[in-house]
Amino acid sequence: MESIHTRRTIRQYCGRNIEPELLEKLLSEAARTQTMGNLQLYSVVVTRSDAGKAALAPAHFNQPMVKSAPVVLTICADFRRTSTWAECRQATPGYDNVLSFMNAATDALLYTQTFCNLAEEAGLGICFLGTTIYQPHAIIEALQLPQLVFPVATLTVGWPAEEPPLSDRLPLASFVHQETYHDPTPEDIDLFYAEKEALEVNQEFVRINNKETLAQIFTDIRYTKSDNEALSLTFTEALKRQGFIH
Amino acid sequence: MESIHTRRTIRQYCGRNIEPELLEKLLSEAARTQTMGNLQLYSVVVTRSDAGKAALAPAHFNQPMVKSAPVVLTICADFRRTSTWAECRQATPGYDNVLSFMNAATDALLYTQTFCNLAEEAGLGICFLGTTIYQPHAIIEALQLPQLVFPVATLTVGWPAEEPPLSDRLPLASFVHQETYHDPTPEDIDLFYAEKEALEVNQEFVRINNKETLAQIFTDIRYTKSDNEALSLTFTEALKRQGFIH
Repeated sequence: MESIHTRRTIRQYCGRNIEPELLEKLLSEAARTQTMGNLQLYSVVVTRSDAGKAALAPAHFNQPMVKSAPVVLTICADFRRTSTWAECRQATPGYDNVLSFMNAATDALLYTQTFCNLAEEAGLGICFLGTTIYQPHAIIEALQLPQLVFPVATLTVGWPAEEPPLSDRLPLASFVHQETYHDPTPEDIDLFYAEKEALEVNQEFVRINNKETLAQIFTDIRYTKSDNEALSLTFTEALKRQGFIH
Repeated sequence: MESIHTRRTIRQYCGRNIEPELLEKLLSEAARTQTMGNLQLYSVVVTRSDAGKAALAPAHFNQPMVKSAPVVLTICADFRRTSTWAECRQATPGYDNVLSFMNAATDALLYTQTFCNLAEEAGLGICFLGTTIYQPHAIIEALQLPQLVFPVATLTVGWPAEEPPLSDRLPLASFVHQETYHDPTPEDIDLFYAEKEALEVNQEFVRINNKETLAQIFTDIRYTKSDNEALSLTFTEALKRQGFIH
């Protein structure tokens, strides 16, 4: 898995299509990932049509990758199929609750990441759209997701037409803890974030946005408290609509 | 990533330790996984001590792997470090809400799965403990996790001392949908689950548990409605305790 060292998010794709056989091979291999009780609590909706992409785009704030990628994958936490199986077999399913949503979301996200690792190893480029859980109702409508199916990840996938620089990462000590959690002190924070804050690209972000610190870019612009609180309501409403909360 | 074809959950480990350098290399490489805003909203607690494993074991219903594996990793959704960074930089964090929990849990689970893929490629064996979100309060206490840190995955890791058979998987058509979701009909269900239900090991499960169908093993014994509902409450309470719900 040498590709892990050179992977980067790819937002621009060349015209070449993804052969159905390749996509099926990757989707199939990814299913070797461990799954709860071997139930495979996920489903994948493949969008290739222009109409399908156009229907999804607004849910992702019209990020251009949704329309320009040859394939868009929406990966869903799915207790529907398992519940239907139970109902067809004289069994009474009890998966309309938050724990079951988390179990299915976990299965779906683990599956998603193995797919990403396999696809990148095959030379494909991927963009993971975090917007999936911001407006889930719009995706649910576009893909006609029934009760107990909930979108948790979207990938735009294609052959790379760009090679952006590798993004920075925090030092290992900032996120690995020995035996118990070590709450970071202000001195730790200085150490952990020094490299990130010193990057010219990040200093430029701070300047052009008239902010004092890089952290303010995140708290005041990219991921604000008011947005997070509004989107928490939207997310919770969608969980209700799909039957995971009552 | 040829290892994906032969991976299986490993619950028995030989005496050989995992060298700290190898573990650090894998934990570090896994961090190349995409992450929201490049914030790396996760942390990993490494448990190697007997005392640490003994403290974690009850949270995982005393499954023997927790004590017998050389290393136990608890991967957490973590908005604590990012929030502390903000507070140290004249920025006001707003990540004490459900959406932020989901964002951090997503980051943590994607990171977890890349780690699994890398570790299995290096020859290590892993068991993913789904029990992590069943009794999160017990793990929070054992690992001293502060507010805005929440355990979402546990891996027991070691060198394999067993080679169990590969587990079965559903056919691709059961979990991959083209353009929109196709709700499975009873005929689809028969087709999708035929192989699983015909497996001798599964038929034996049904017999020894005096059940009529394999689905009943899941609904009546392994993942019951009453357990799921009780654990949903426990999970929600833990989210409140850690500050993600008010």
